[in-house]
Amino acid sequence: MHVPLDDKLNAFCPDSRAYLQGADQGPLAGLTFAAKDIFDVKGHVTGGGNPDWKAGQTAAEATAWAVEVLVGAGATMVGKTHTDELTRGILGVNAHYGTPLNPKAPGRVPGGSSSGSAAAVAGGLVDFALGSDTGGSVRIPAGFCGLYGLRPTHGRIPLDGMLLQAPSYDTVGWFARDPDLFARVGAVLLQTRIGPIRPRRLVVAEDAFEVADPSVREALEPLVERLGSLIGLSSRERLAPTSLSDWAAGQRVRASSESWEVVREWIDRVNPRMSFHVAESCLAGRSLTPEEVAPALVDRQKVMARMGALLAGETVVCLPTAPTPAPPRTQTMSERRPLTSRIVQLTCTAGTIGAPQINLPWAEAEGLPAGLSLIAAPGSDEMLIAFARQAAETLQID
Amino acid sequence: MHVPLDDKLNAFCPDSRAYLQGADQGPLAGLTFAAKDIFDVKGHVTGGGNPDWKAGQTAAEATAWAVEVLVGAGATMVGKTHTDELTRGILGVNAHYGTPLNPKAPGRVPGGSSSGSAAAVAGGLVDFALGSDTGGSVRIPAGFCGLYGLRPTHGRIPLDGMLLQAPSYDTVGWFARDPDLFARVGAVLLQTRIGPIRPRRLVVAEDAFEVADPSVREALEPLVERLGSLIGLSSRERLAPTSLSDWAAGQRVRASSESWEVVREWIDRVNPRMSFHVAESCLAGRSLTPEEVAPALVDRQKVMARMGALLAGETVVCLPTAPTPAPPRTQTMSERRPLTSRIVQLTCTAGTIGAPQINLPWAEAEGLPAGLSLIAAPGSDEMLIAFARQAAETLQID
Repeated sequence: MHVPLDDKLNAFCPDSRAYLQGADQGPLAGLTFAAKDIFDVKGHVTGGGNPDWKAGQTAAEATAWAVEVLVGAGATMVGKTHTDELTRGILGVNAHYGTPLNPKAPGRVPGGSSSGSAAAVAGGLVDFALGSDTGGSVRIPAGFCGLYGLRPTHGRIPLDGMLLQAPSYDTVGWFARDPDLFARVGAVLLQTRIGPIRPRRLVVAEDAFEVADPSVREALEPLVERLGSLIGLSSRERLAPTSLSDWAAGQRVRASSESWEVVREWIDRVNPRMSFHVAESCLAGRSLTPEEVAPALVDRQKVMARMGALLAGETVVCLPTAPTPAPPRTQTMSERRPLTSRIVQLTCTAGTIGAPQINLPWAEAEGLPAGLSLIAAPGSDEMLIAFARQAAETLQID
Repeated sequence: MHVPLDDKLNAFCPDSRAYLQGADQGPLAGLTFAAKDIFDVKGHVTGGGNPDWKAGQTAAEATAWAVEVLVGAGATMVGKTHTDELTRGILGVNAHYGTPLNPKAPGRVPGGSSSGSAAAVAGGLVDFALGSDTGGSVRIPAGFCGLYGLRPTHGRIPLDGMLLQAPSYDTVGWFARDPDLFARVGAVLLQTRIGPIRPRRLVVAEDAFEVADPSVREALEPLVERLGSLIGLSSRERLAPTSLSDWAAGQRVRASSESWEVVREWIDRVNPRMSFHVAESCLAGRSLTPEEVAPALVDRQKVMARMGALLAGETVVCLPTAPTPAPPRTQTMSERRPLTSRIVQLTCTAGTIGAPQINLPWAEAEGLPAGLSLIAAPGSDEMLIAFARQAAETLQID
């Protein structure tokens, strides 16, 4: 039975509204969800946000692992959601299918690339939704749309049946409005129990806060204080020995060279239509030389060593999810470019080290959602999810 | 009165079939023509081959100069024709509107960017058609579709009301199947009389012939001999002191840096959808530094000096219009790239020096049109047109 969706948000792909009835019983029975249109659903074409990509695909022969386990746990999938072209974008802008509306920030972008999933959850069209996060594609839309959203530990949730961008960094993530529901979904996707584990130490990432606008810093500061009291031990430190912009530059080199390899054969064969900024991003990957990529791969080890030391002993690092609230939908490319660079300074750390990062949608700046993020050591997904649920209760966040 | 067109060639823009009834009397009375969809027609939107460009335009307030004079001379305009996106392309490939068919070479591209105009004339849908030529956009489709086509002297035909690519190199050109009709149209567009002036010397450009496939060289060689006998004095020379690929590289730098300036504000504002190869070409222009452009501008003077000396005294230089017959429609980008580079080696000379170049559709290679080109000194358009007409008669080419 298909429930017609009243999608005033342009969150859903109108022509591939894959519907999968959830199992009768299970921890998610009775819930509805949506999946970014990069997850395969048997019998449906995976569109990936680009019409020329879609035109070259046939109906999927199997359903993506993540979708399968959610449906098996009782959740009903009601449709596929819009994405930035081939997940290449961080703002949710898609010229082919239209940029989904941000229900929490009218006139602003929803964030991306899991744009439609975030919009659908924030607008109440579904209980939760699947996205993916390579360079921030769950965290940023969660931040801009005021949702719980997790980039899990790299490799913890199987990518089977998902369109890849850069496999060394690709992850399956999800969004929810409510921390308890968020944890229930997480238990299914991570195949785990979300127990009462909690962080023992909070590190406030000073250099990350410096990247953010004053309005965002001011909005998050009281929250950071309250989290500090809750956790007990807290300190302020700089993450990067030089600058987060160096870490961001390295991550862009690594991810974009890898993501060029993923699309190069297809691009050469199809000469696809793309928005200019997407073609530009692909070509940035193509232009990288081995001499540029090799040192970036070495640098990755340094970031891992630094962060590994910092995150030991159930430490969480807190930082702004995004440097600003969601920007206007109407910006030019040259207005967006510096913002994107700042965003990557905040998203690059977890991506580089494969660590989980959760967005806590507990603040507002300029009347718009302003998310606080927590990063924990790889494998500590449960701790972040459990702490979000517990802290929301303790701090009486509704 | 609109005559419905049976456009099986996808030559015409179906949604902007501007119709202008020709004047009752005049040298072109009773003829029909089409114009590339970069020429303004009052009351119609100029599409330029890109839907995001088109969406930002309003109906033209005036008709382009070239269209106006043709209609005033009695010709009836029956519609606008497809073009490569914003005239950026040489093969006629347009993913938004479809690549026009080449009536003389099934399964092959028509050449571009004046693709629809060439297809419409070659397929007999109109008597003649307007195109534009910046880097070969009349000459190459004329060559691939077996038509008379002229890139005129730069500046001889006003560009008013035409979408520009790189104004230092942009020209208005035209196509016809018949040399006499070609000359009649030329007399109107050039506001001249096509008298019996003829070349006094023929230079066979050896380095240009070396760029072409053996099949093309063999197809053109007998024709070169006959033209040599007709003209009297002839010699074989190399055009470039080093290599035509150096001349081509310089012209690409000059034209692409200038053409980036033409679109940069629009691209930044609109973030348009483009085929990958078009975005790539735009970004190649953007990536050029003043340190790369400055020497290319100096080199232009050297090419002008060399060619000025060679073309003095009613000399014409002959060369293959294109290095191969029209390539298959299905090539990948990496298959097209080396061909495009070779094409530019043959088209760059006239573009660099602002000289006229005519395609003579008098040969076939591999059963497909193979054009021979003549270049004359700037201002000698009449001589090329008159000689084409006279030689066609003398050589009994039908």
